Amino acid sequence: MDLSSYIRNVNNFPKPGIVFKDITPLLKDPKAVNQAVAQLYHLTEKKNVDLVVGIESRGFFFGTLLAQKLNCGFVPVRKPNKLPYATVSETYALEYGNDTLEIHKDAIQKGDKVIVHDDVLATGGTALAVCKLVEKLGGEVVQCNFLMELSFLEGRKKLSGHNVQTIIKY
Amino acid sequence: MDLSSYIRNVNNFPKPGIVFKDITPLLKDPKAVNQAVAQLYHLTEKKNVDLVVGIESRGFFFGTLLAQKLNCGFVPVRKPNKLPYATVSETYALEYGNDTLEIHKDAIQKGDKVIVHDDVLATGGTALAVCKLVEKLGGEVVQCNFLMELSFLEGRKKLSGHNVQTIIKY
Repeated sequence: MDLSSYIRNVNNFPKPGIVFKDITPLLKDPKAVNQAVAQLYHLTEKKNVDLVVGIESRGFFFGTLLAQKLNCGFVPVRKPNKLPYATVSETYALEYGNDTLEIHKDAIQKGDKVIVHDDVLATGGTALAVCKLVEKLGGEVVQCNFLMELSFLEGRKKLSGHNVQTIIKY
Repeated sequence: MDLSSYIRNVNNFPKPGIVFKDITPLLKDPKAVNQAVAQLYHLTEKKNVDLVVGIESRGFFFGTLLAQKLNCGFVPVRKPNKLPYATVSETYALEYGNDTLEIHKDAIQKGDKVIVHDDVLATGGTALAVCKLVEKLGGEVVQCNFLMELSFLEGRKKLSGHNVQTIIKY
């Protein structure tokens, strides 16, 4: 099964000149979803992972499914003021301006082995900020994993030092 | 296993006087997650469901897991300008002001049997708007299902005529 055939290109979203990779056709097909989860699971050699951290909000889809497959917990990282309990935050630069992400302070224990998951690796800025959040709380990022990778944006460079894994490469 | 013991009360979130039901402790425990998914699955007598529609963004967690368990597709309903392809939208009243939700036009085919899922049933306004989106596209809402129900807000009244199911009642 070629998973990339379930990804739809949408031109000029979210702004002119961008070709957006739409995963909703993949989510609609249970066989394709199972195949994607199996491949994400296969990326993890040692299965002794404590937590999958998924990034709001497209990282929630396969993040929860991967955590279930690994029989470990799931932790959401969210935009500001969405998480109800005490949080730590990390602000990072975008092309224009900044963005901030938050995680619950008690979401990770010192020494926890953590997979950081999102749907797409682009410039890597978001995932790097999440790695920093995990490390602030004493967790160890054992893998950054993504459904898709936009190689031309060189996100792997920004995540150098981390174990970066993806299943669909562009 | 008492699933409600994995739900944390957070006082005064998102505003003074509100007690927020935080599901992140539940998401962190794989046994509790599996138990919740099994119970959500058990709510569906006939398993011939075509799609689970999950509401942004806490409806994405158990919505994707339930769709996988039912071996059917998952469709996200999102806030405006988040879905990349052609959409239909529904605007509904909040306590103060309005909110709008969107679904992809091609997400549902005429006659599809659909479960609408969210984490919590409060006043029912959000879920009702999503039922209308499903019906606009010709789908049949066979169940509205929620992890939790805040009975005192009488969401079932607003959803009268729909098959409403929940696994944790307050």
